[in-house]
Amino acid sequence: MTTAGNNLDPWYGSYAERTAGLAASEVRALFAVASRPEVVSLAGGMPYVSALPREIVTGAMDRVMRDRGPIALQYGSGQGAPALREHILEVMALEGIRASVDDVVVTTGSQHALELVTKIFIDPGDVVLAEGPSYVTAMVVFKSYQAVIEHSEMDEHGLVPEALRQKIAYLKAAGKTIKFLYTVPTFSNPAGVTLTWERRLEILEICRSEGILVLEDNPYGLLYFGGPPPHAMRSVEEDGVIYLGTFSKTLAPGFRVGWALAPHAIREKLILANEAAVLSPSSFTQLIIAEYLATADWKGQIDTFRGVYRERRDAMLQALSDYLPDTSWTVPNGGFYVWLTLPANLDSKSMLPRAVKELVAYTPGTAFYADGGGRNKIRLAFCYPTPDFIREGIRRLSTVINGELELLNTFSQTAPLPLQRDKGSLINPPANLG
Amino acid sequence: MTTAGNNLDPWYGSYAERTAGLAASEVRALFAVASRPEVVSLAGGMPYVSALPREIVTGAMDRVMRDRGPIALQYGSGQGAPALREHILEVMALEGIRASVDDVVVTTGSQHALELVTKIFIDPGDVVLAEGPSYVTAMVVFKSYQAVIEHSEMDEHGLVPEALRQKIAYLKAAGKTIKFLYTVPTFSNPAGVTLTWERRLEILEICRSEGILVLEDNPYGLLYFGGPPPHAMRSVEEDGVIYLGTFSKTLAPGFRVGWALAPHAIREKLILANEAAVLSPSSFTQLIIAEYLATADWKGQIDTFRGVYRERRDAMLQALSDYLPDTSWTVPNGGFYVWLTLPANLDSKSMLPRAVKELVAYTPGTAFYADGGGRNKIRLAFCYPTPDFIREGIRRLSTVINGELELLNTFSQTAPLPLQRDKGSLINPPANLG
Repeated sequence: MTTAGNNLDPWYGSYAERTAGLAASEVRALFAVASRPEVVSLAGGMPYVSALPREIVTGAMDRVMRDRGPIALQYGSGQGAPALREHILEVMALEGIRASVDDVVVTTGSQHALELVTKIFIDPGDVVLAEGPSYVTAMVVFKSYQAVIEHSEMDEHGLVPEALRQKIAYLKAAGKTIKFLYTVPTFSNPAGVTLTWERRLEILEICRSEGILVLEDNPYGLLYFGGPPPHAMRSVEEDGVIYLGTFSKTLAPGFRVGWALAPHAIREKLILANEAAVLSPSSFTQLIIAEYLATADWKGQIDTFRGVYRERRDAMLQALSDYLPDTSWTVPNGGFYVWLTLPANLDSKSMLPRAVKELVAYTPGTAFYADGGGRNKIRLAFCYPTPDFIREGIRRLSTVINGELELLNTFSQTAPLPLQRDKGSLINPPANLG
Repeated sequence: MTTAGNNLDPWYGSYAERTAGLAASEVRALFAVASRPEVVSLAGGMPYVSALPREIVTGAMDRVMRDRGPIALQYGSGQGAPALREHILEVMALEGIRASVDDVVVTTGSQHALELVTKIFIDPGDVVLAEGPSYVTAMVVFKSYQAVIEHSEMDEHGLVPEALRQKIAYLKAAGKTIKFLYTVPTFSNPAGVTLTWERRLEILEICRSEGILVLEDNPYGLLYFGGPPPHAMRSVEEDGVIYLGTFSKTLAPGFRVGWALAPHAIREKLILANEAAVLSPSSFTQLIIAEYLATADWKGQIDTFRGVYRERRDAMLQALSDYLPDTSWTVPNGGFYVWLTLPANLDSKSMLPRAVKELVAYTPGTAFYADGGGRNKIRLAFCYPTPDFIREGIRRLSTVINGELELLNTFSQTAPLPLQRDKGSLINPPANLG
């Protein structure tokens, strides 16, 4: 054996450099723990698929197999099924996007669109700008192609344009190559905040003038609880934005169907990368979704989901007010997540084993930063558990937090520690549920 | 705009270096042409999915949605559904493989396993050894990660061990890093040949002593027409082989479900890469296939497919004997492909437009070489058209070939060109169909 192996892995010396960046995410390790039935999991962002009537799915499947079985079972186009791409235009129109069916590329969930965009753009050492905090598994992808992730500050109205401008200037002065800005502008993961319309325009203008592509990831935009959020950034900027959408949250993630809407030349390269990766996305699941969109009241179904998640958001905010009045949190107007700020002297990651012992799970804030930030932050997902479980989960969490604070005070050498309020961004006063 | 764009693509200067290797394959351009109904396509390797009874699929779907709907619609494990992985062990046992369910990673078709393996192993400039000729879209993946593809000679019994030994010595002397040997040892794509058992052992021994991983891609192994082929290479070598399997040929490609069986440490990295790429493969299609394998006569169904493809192989060989007695071809004992050798002075790629005008399509041999080889070769796929269409397609092809030869003779300045028999490997005498 001429390669440098070891006893545990004879191929240890053979991996690509990029493979060193492929570490298990903090969220991943949690899934095993949090799936025990006695644990209230506020960790994973699993949609509540039980709110989807089974007959809607089986009906669409039966018709597809009856009318187009040999097409559904066969390889398809690397760009995705034309019928589905037509319907995707209707979905995006709800957020103000007008586009050609030719510029849509169907992917194996929007996660795979993230992978493909990163593959075609990122050389080792290139910079990806991302919100701080940012979607954990997007960062896993960026790192797997050896990108350097640089966070840009956000507050309760999303990315802060002036901070972005300064960050870009700083990075360019340092000779860095910035390939794109990755953002979840609407009901962000994990912060639960939404970029205002004025800021959308300002950030697009900054990126345009700096020659930075915007990667707009929008899994949650249609899941609003009050009025609809601002239109997508892609609705006003065609050449500078790659828009990612998915059926994982408005229908079901088990199908693994998402899409990218990309400028013409980029779209061509995405199709080639998609073909190399999977030949074609699943014809079977694409045709079922196309049939569903053609025949079912899919807008009504999204409305059903909105109702489910709104009720759960309300339950979480109420429980936070009741049980954790000394912490602060964001108030999401849609989506799946609340971003909780603990007293500054607490460490949410080291607290997690104790939380699991108390039968509640969450995702520690550090998972959402590439730079070690988020130590006293927690992402709370309200999408999956019922309102009662959410309330019980927050109650358990309060026990853990209060216990940690007591512990800190007990072992403090000096006077009891005052509650240290975090001075960072993303603090809201306790929620107005109205 | 500070990046180097152009009028056609403002992001022209922004792509990763690897993106230059993402060119449209020759096969891809063909699909558009060959899909016109009046063309007999011997080009694409599309399975004949109409041989799969519709009720088998709809029955499995209905039961999955009835009994495990919320699981089928939800995100799953990045490694794949445990129930499916158990059944995959049964499938692989048919080829002599004994393995742990822990070492199976389900992927979005085995194409995605190729992508993931390449991503975790290939740095720019690394060498991938591949049969000459080799599966075109595997080479697209290797190139997309900037691998250098080096072909190793094969004959009608598959890879030639001595040639492989020499190739490795030559490359190592030149200071190259060889990461793996990619091979389709059974009913290969495109050559249609099968590596003998003795050679399997010899090649494994060579790779073991040289520290080269073997990537054994086996989509066709169960589709044999006579007796079963030699057992998989993985059946005798666990640490040095990544084995790839798929349901695309034994069930249907529309589900996009394949798998990798990998040594323990590699498997861990494949799971991480799979999670980064797609979070999890489709629970929906995985559960349907698991249900199908648990309840249907799937071995009987594979036998049905064998009968369909054997009849088509026979039709193609008979038509070649009847219409193209002056060419030579391989005689596959399974799978989808015959590899045709034209007279040495013909160029199958430049001949293709004329063939399409005559309403027959094929894949030119150059698609299957990274080095410009295969100029006078053709891949003929017998998997999709009915026997009558295959015969008509070969008749049309003979018209084209004879027309080309006439043209060459007409424009020859000297005496009429003699038919130049190709002296390379992969020539068989006209087939004995018995």
